[in-house]
Amino acid sequence: MNPNPYEYVEAHREAFVGELIEFLRIPSISTLSEYAGDVRRAATWLADHLASIGMQRVEVVETARHPIVYAEWLGAPGAPTVLIYGHYDVQPVDDPEGQWLSDPFEPDIRAGNLYARGATDDKGQVLTQIKAVQALLASGEMPVNVKFVIEGEEESGSTNLYPFVEQNAERLAADIVVVSDTGMKSLAEPSIVYGLRGLAYMEIEVRGPEHDLHSGSYGGVVHNPAQALVEILAQMHDDQGRVTVPGFYDRVAVVSAEERAELAKTPMTVERLRRETGAPAAWGETGYALHERTGIRPTLEINGLVSGWISEGTKTVLPAKALAKVSCRLVPDQDAQEIAALVSDFVRSITPPTVTSAVRLLHHGRWAVVDVSSPEMQAARDAYEFGFGKQPTLVREGGSVPIVGAFQSALHAPVILMGFGQQDDNLHGPNEKFALAGFAGGMKTAIKFYQIIGQRG
Amino acid sequence: MNPNPYEYVEAHREAFVGELIEFLRIPSISTLSEYAGDVRRAATWLADHLASIGMQRVEVVETARHPIVYAEWLGAPGAPTVLIYGHYDVQPVDDPEGQWLSDPFEPDIRAGNLYARGATDDKGQVLTQIKAVQALLASGEMPVNVKFVIEGEEESGSTNLYPFVEQNAERLAADIVVVSDTGMKSLAEPSIVYGLRGLAYMEIEVRGPEHDLHSGSYGGVVHNPAQALVEILAQMHDDQGRVTVPGFYDRVAVVSAEERAELAKTPMTVERLRRETGAPAAWGETGYALHERTGIRPTLEINGLVSGWISEGTKTVLPAKALAKVSCRLVPDQDAQEIAALVSDFVRSITPPTVTSAVRLLHHGRWAVVDVSSPEMQAARDAYEFGFGKQPTLVREGGSVPIVGAFQSALHAPVILMGFGQQDDNLHGPNEKFALAGFAGGMKTAIKFYQIIGQRG
Repeated sequence: MNPNPYEYVEAHREAFVGELIEFLRIPSISTLSEYAGDVRRAATWLADHLASIGMQRVEVVETARHPIVYAEWLGAPGAPTVLIYGHYDVQPVDDPEGQWLSDPFEPDIRAGNLYARGATDDKGQVLTQIKAVQALLASGEMPVNVKFVIEGEEESGSTNLYPFVEQNAERLAADIVVVSDTGMKSLAEPSIVYGLRGLAYMEIEVRGPEHDLHSGSYGGVVHNPAQALVEILAQMHDDQGRVTVPGFYDRVAVVSAEERAELAKTPMTVERLRRETGAPAAWGETGYALHERTGIRPTLEINGLVSGWISEGTKTVLPAKALAKVSCRLVPDQDAQEIAALVSDFVRSITPPTVTSAVRLLHHGRWAVVDVSSPEMQAARDAYEFGFGKQPTLVREGGSVPIVGAFQSALHAPVILMGFGQQDDNLHGPNEKFALAGFAGGMKTAIKFYQIIGQRG
Repeated sequence: MNPNPYEYVEAHREAFVGELIEFLRIPSISTLSEYAGDVRRAATWLADHLASIGMQRVEVVETARHPIVYAEWLGAPGAPTVLIYGHYDVQPVDDPEGQWLSDPFEPDIRAGNLYARGATDDKGQVLTQIKAVQALLASGEMPVNVKFVIEGEEESGSTNLYPFVEQNAERLAADIVVVSDTGMKSLAEPSIVYGLRGLAYMEIEVRGPEHDLHSGSYGGVVHNPAQALVEILAQMHDDQGRVTVPGFYDRVAVVSAEERAELAKTPMTVERLRRETGAPAAWGETGYALHERTGIRPTLEINGLVSGWISEGTKTVLPAKALAKVSCRLVPDQDAQEIAALVSDFVRSITPPTVTSAVRLLHHGRWAVVDVSSPEMQAARDAYEFGFGKQPTLVREGGSVPIVGAFQSALHAPVILMGFGQQDDNLHGPNEKFALAGFAGGMKTAIKFYQIIGQRG
């Protein structure tokens, strides 16, 4: 007798956690070229794993950089087809102060959480989906057809996924796309993301002298590029927390009072923000609530700054150049390339003649908004209630999953952002975690979702 | 028959260059603790070398960090005693763009210049003095008594030299102090530095959240420390190139019209500045000529900036902290510790409540001005004319040799800044060099100087 899928995941709980740990041990950092071999190793691990649970046509698709893992199971003719997206690459560690309490690539379980780089973003969520499909396959009552597209470049711009999706629209054809790469507020406050921001990630470089100079000999007569850079960057926000780049807000769509009222039901509070981040105070654009500043408003953030002497001790150098990494989070109807051009124009217009500047767009992606009134969204809400014991709220997330927009436009299929992370999972930071209860609840939710979708189909 | 000292240096030219190359091969970077062994190796090499030329009581003096090399020769009773200061430590390399054309620690001779880290600052100059003394000792007509004090911490604050000088004032007693650690405009335009600026080197750190955050989830509601830092730093100069720190200029002594007229005889031109640095234009405080901005005016420079993601590619991080290394060059009668306190107060006063900031004084030193009308200065001018074929001009240099002030006050002896570097030697930058003709001319100058001093004594 085939097992009930819920009993199946319950019975295999420990084994599944063991497999996730194995997956997390591979340091598949896509943005650093020295990890290219590990990224490939993660792809191979994933492909082997998909084959082992009964997926078919498993393929490690070569690209110009990191491979895409594809797999399908089309044994339910007439039933709807679901395309499940995730990514197997992870963020860099970058931990100069040793804030990680355990090795980022030696997963550690503490108080019901699994700590590792990529735990929540996105290996834990990818495996939640794979294990749900495995349980359904094992039950002998697979309600839907499934296609997996798991990429290895989400953390470095999904450069090769876009053309892959466009060129394989037929092969990837689906009735619904499930993206598991977002979070809920918490396990006790389940929520479904229906809006994601777009991204324009740039590098601003200021150059002055041809090489580093002695700051005593030339300080005071050569414009220090580090100083010119800080002066440029300081002009990019006004004292109301607004971005000053001309035209930046021109295409921002007005959000209806109704939608703002709905979003206000689950506000971010100053207390919660301080508890989650340790920041001394809240900050941001006046005229908008905290959850609106990250949800419906665009931002411009400095992600990195480097110039001159950055090691211990001192060096009396006047640096030849200074570099900032700057990214904008975008909302409907802003266009990432247009925003990058506006930033570039603005930087050019305020660069003094004593230095030169250049703005390079490193990667970019579209914002996405999902129709909250669709039957798929209703199915998702019911599935979350089943999986986490409570009706989920609907939220807009500050982060970006640019591929969502690409799926919407290339496949003409509704997208559901089925996230199982939590707000405080510290993705991209030290001690990234994924709750084991989220893993279990996520599998339950996903199984239920596919069952509902299958019944309707 | 004992050789004439000038013929001696001429005859040993190649051997001396070989010895300098050997000295330069030791990467004695004092500011980076991983090079501590090399710093010690350079001290030992130097002590052995001083003993080999006939210096007595050679000693590697232990300190809390890097040793001081001491040696003396007191075989000319009744003659004046000269204390010769230099340093055997060097600046770090820090060459991420590979601008060095040859290995910084594998000296390379190209077009009459010796390229290596420390070539001009200060190993080449230290060896110029040692070789001049060696030639005089070999001639059998040593005109002065000599004490060498060669430290290993000049590039990291001379922390242990100050107490050494104060505690050994009797042992170091001298009629004149010669510091060989500055430059001339060029070999064709010999000059003697009579003014050096002081230094206050600080670190400004801004902290916000307790750890790095996802820039999508928290960007817009948490004040980005990198942004707060650039906003603070951008407020430290006005649009006239003046430092805005309240009280910064309060103690700056007025330089007489006469002295400004004398200094104006050897001006820095925009053309020369552009040729030497490659900077697109000149910059600085309005109301002062270029040579005045580096000579008689104080400055505030950013020496380093670091925050967040600084490697290749992208990381959408909102960094937990941002750091700047900032140093002020000071002029009479500014006080370094007072300036550091003013900067600290100013930073505190403009730090918004959304972040915290801290200013740490890493090291500091006093400015120095030498009496240009002294007989020692006249001797130096004559010696330079003999060594370089032209009357030297008198200049104020933008750099700092803080120990000069300490010698002046602890030993009550006149100081001569007998520099043999050139303005374009690129000390502290890539492809640092020392001209072989400067090495030869410097030995000639030093020998002549000691002969003149000895005759007068």
